[in-house]
Amino acid sequence: MSTPGTFIAGVTDADIEEGRRAYQQDREHVFHSWSAQAGLDPMTVLRTEGSYVWDGEGRRLLDFSSQMVNTNIGHQHPAVVRAIQDQAAKICTIAPSHVNAARSEAARLIAELTPGDLNHVFFTNGGADANEHAIRMARVHTGRHKVLSAYRSYHGGTDLAVNVTGDTRRFGNDHAGVGVARFLPAYPYRSYFDSTSEEEETTRALRHLEDVILLEGPESIAALILESVPGTPGIYVPPKGYMQGVRNLADKYGIVWIADEVMVGFGRTGEWFAVDHWDQRPDLMTFAKGVNSGYVPLGGVAISDEIYQTFAERPYPGGLTYSGHPLACAAAVATIQAMKDEGMVENARRLGTEVFGPGLAEIAEKHPSVGDVRGLGCFWAIELVKDRQTKEPLAPYGGSSAAMGELIGALKAGGMLPFANYNRIHVAPPLNMSTEEAREGLRIIDEALSVADAHAV
Amino acid sequence: MSTPGTFIAGVTDADIEEGRRAYQQDREHVFHSWSAQAGLDPMTVLRTEGSYVWDGEGRRLLDFSSQMVNTNIGHQHPAVVRAIQDQAAKICTIAPSHVNAARSEAARLIAELTPGDLNHVFFTNGGADANEHAIRMARVHTGRHKVLSAYRSYHGGTDLAVNVTGDTRRFGNDHAGVGVARFLPAYPYRSYFDSTSEEEETTRALRHLEDVILLEGPESIAALILESVPGTPGIYVPPKGYMQGVRNLADKYGIVWIADEVMVGFGRTGEWFAVDHWDQRPDLMTFAKGVNSGYVPLGGVAISDEIYQTFAERPYPGGLTYSGHPLACAAAVATIQAMKDEGMVENARRLGTEVFGPGLAEIAEKHPSVGDVRGLGCFWAIELVKDRQTKEPLAPYGGSSAAMGELIGALKAGGMLPFANYNRIHVAPPLNMSTEEAREGLRIIDEALSVADAHAV
Ligand SMILES: Cc1ncc(COP(=O)(O)O)c(C=O)c1O
Ligand SMILES: Cc1ncc(COP(=O)(O)O)c(C=O)c1O
Repeated sequence: MSTPGTFIAGVTDADIEEGRRAYQQDREHVFHSWSAQAGLDPMTVLRTEGSYVWDGEGRRLLDFSSQMVNTNIGHQHPAVVRAIQDQAAKICTIAPSHVNAARSEAARLIAELTPGDLNHVFFTNGGADANEHAIRMARVHTGRHKVLSAYRSYHGGTDLAVNVTGDTRRFGNDHAGVGVARFLPAYPYRSYFDSTSEEEETTRALRHLEDVILLEGPESIAALILESVPGTPGIYVPPKGYMQGVRNLADKYGIVWIADEVMVGFGRTGEWFAVDHWDQRPDLMTFAKGVNSGYVPLGGVAISDEIYQTFAERPYPGGLTYSGHPLACAAAVATIQAMKDEGMVENARRLGTEVFGPGLAEIAEKHPSVGDVRGLGCFWAIELVKDRQTKEPLAPYGGSSAAMGELIGALKAGGMLPFANYNRIHVAPPLNMSTEEAREGLRIIDEALSVADAHAV
Repeated sequence: MSTPGTFIAGVTDADIEEGRRAYQQDREHVFHSWSAQAGLDPMTVLRTEGSYVWDGEGRRLLDFSSQMVNTNIGHQHPAVVRAIQDQAAKICTIAPSHVNAARSEAARLIAELTPGDLNHVFFTNGGADANEHAIRMARVHTGRHKVLSAYRSYHGGTDLAVNVTGDTRRFGNDHAGVGVARFLPAYPYRSYFDSTSEEEETTRALRHLEDVILLEGPESIAALILESVPGTPGIYVPPKGYMQGVRNLADKYGIVWIADEVMVGFGRTGEWFAVDHWDQRPDLMTFAKGVNSGYVPLGGVAISDEIYQTFAERPYPGGLTYSGHPLACAAAVATIQAMKDEGMVENARRLGTEVFGPGLAEIAEKHPSVGDVRGLGCFWAIELVKDRQTKEPLAPYGGSSAAMGELIGALKAGGMLPFANYNRIHVAPPLNMSTEEAREGLRIIDEALSVADAHAV
């Protein structure tokens, strides 16, 4: 059953047998996200540790996805596992109305880490409900209703969150913009504004944003929601000056800026929060994933003093049963502590500048199928094209292609669990990955890209 | 620091000190649900076990709330704590797209327990997102958009869930019924239909429901969402024949019946699901809370074969990062097992018929402030009035009153953590409560009600 170097001790034949049963039951009873159910053939995961997962045959794969870009501290970090076990022994759950030590400490730590005066934390279960509640806070705070959101963005799967979403995942649910108006993002590689430089992209994208605000009517706009670095839709790092421009427009028109840091918060880009790269202070910041690496479901909204004041005397009209769940909050406290103790944010930054940045630039140089590489810290996109000149994507927006399918297959065969989206491969490994693991990942990508090159001119 | 009988061993002075710090940090950094933040003075909980919680002074309180009516197996059930610890040691988290043994087993067990052919499970983090996704499934399945929901109902705090909600919690968020139409519930004690008997209430409430369907246009209605026993808004047990009537109307007009069993599912009413009392088969059933007693955030939608078929070849347009979270699912598996092993559903039924039913009837007899008592299993409402003749409530709908404030104070002083809503006290203890604990609770209520009687004629 075991081939040295591929199959790894730690997965037994009994585990594999259990995995087979689990697969069977999954196909009979588990309804999967974003999928047609009949044709699914999901990968079984038998074991996870650090930067690796083991599939149903006991094969070890380097996790360059961090699952849904959430296991920022890697899999099964011992300090966090222990903290969950200890909290489980103490108090698993308590209603949100009461005081709980783990919840208080998590809120204090998050308030301390977030920029500006985001001193108050409303906890949710994940990213979608964090955005739902942030929008509600903005609506009540401003007395306005409309939300501005970017095309090519993702904000979650509940009805409001998926309707403010600007990527293809809203297509099946779209209420044709009830309460939502959209603008085009800054996206230098495929500029919507015919820009030929980063500087031009910043100027034009901001003018466009202001145009939309003026045409929608500033007095009607409660919030502007924006991923600080748009994630799944493409890791478009905003060009220099863009985020300052967003802050200025929000101030000018009295609009609440909601920074969606669900995917990029807690170190992903090599700063605690992506807005820290540009020294910006949003009015509300939503988080989930990295806050406790998803070891227990948790999300939330960090709230400025000014918006908090709106709800000092006036009840906030929202809530949920598991707000500030003790087990989830204890995992957050331990995660943040481990990230600090082990310098994970610094490591993410270092991997970005020393390994991924130069390594991916080399790869781009070498492979004709690579149209663009871009990113920060442990968060990079490799955008694949048929032709570098025309930038024709290797798979259409919202679709797949044989070429991308082959590439994903080659990455897996090479020993990697990749994160793929349309014509892109994302590099989103744990922040505490070693240099060796990071280089190993780049090597696998380098090798697999020959498959994509065959489809490019 | 300790007075025998009130203060209990197991809470140390150090715990109390930690609780004080937690209180301080809570006031500075934790944003609470459904509240104005400034005036809050939340209770600190230092310890929980079985049917009890310990407050910030180390005082033991009998938990007649099950927190948010979720700790159906009581606090810190050792088998479930152990299962969480074991799963934490194994795999905390994995993306929804993969196969995981805990997730598969939870889905299998839930499919087995739910009535009819609800054979497929889509996992969410809580009740609100379960309802959001159920409504989406109904919309895609029927190709229709509108949702029918009952006044005096609660379906969750996210935007769509709170807008289909029929109780006062939607007031701060109401989009004036975009996509939602409402009907009046069957509520025998305060009939909206001038009924004078249960039978009449059933007939008239069903005719009313059909009137609304016809006036809205049956072809426009995707779903009818209904708490099987409306919970927080008042524990209105549907009169005989009502649920069968709902099933018939849903069938007649091709409307998807979504049974919201978030609060009543998993044994609360003395059956695994409340619809089991009337032998009904909804098309979709949402759950959360009791599925794992809230030890780890978890919710979901149980899906019929027919609706599953809609998504066999066509992608379901929805998802979330933590769908089928392994830690949450492992807690569900252990919870369901413990409930079976220890006969908790049977115990809930027995407590209902032998203790709460007769005990509350006696209390109603004795106290002029009690207008009505009603319920099933471990799920009862005591509705308080100023005058039994006029049924004038002891606090207005959506409001509080000095009388209710005093009553709640008296219950706490008597050693109980109560669940109160407007003019009602709910009896919603753990399902595995002993007869002695249940009787002790009734004694505390009996004593405290003299305070309410002083406000009644
Ligand atoms: C930027 C962003 N916002 C919100 C969400 C939604 O989070 P969740 O899936 O926890 O609801 C995601 C999930 O990927 C995300 O990437
Ligand atoms: C009947 C019902 N549905 C839905 C919900 C929402 O669940 P959650 O608070 O987990 O979002 C609740 C919560 O109390 C409920 O009682």
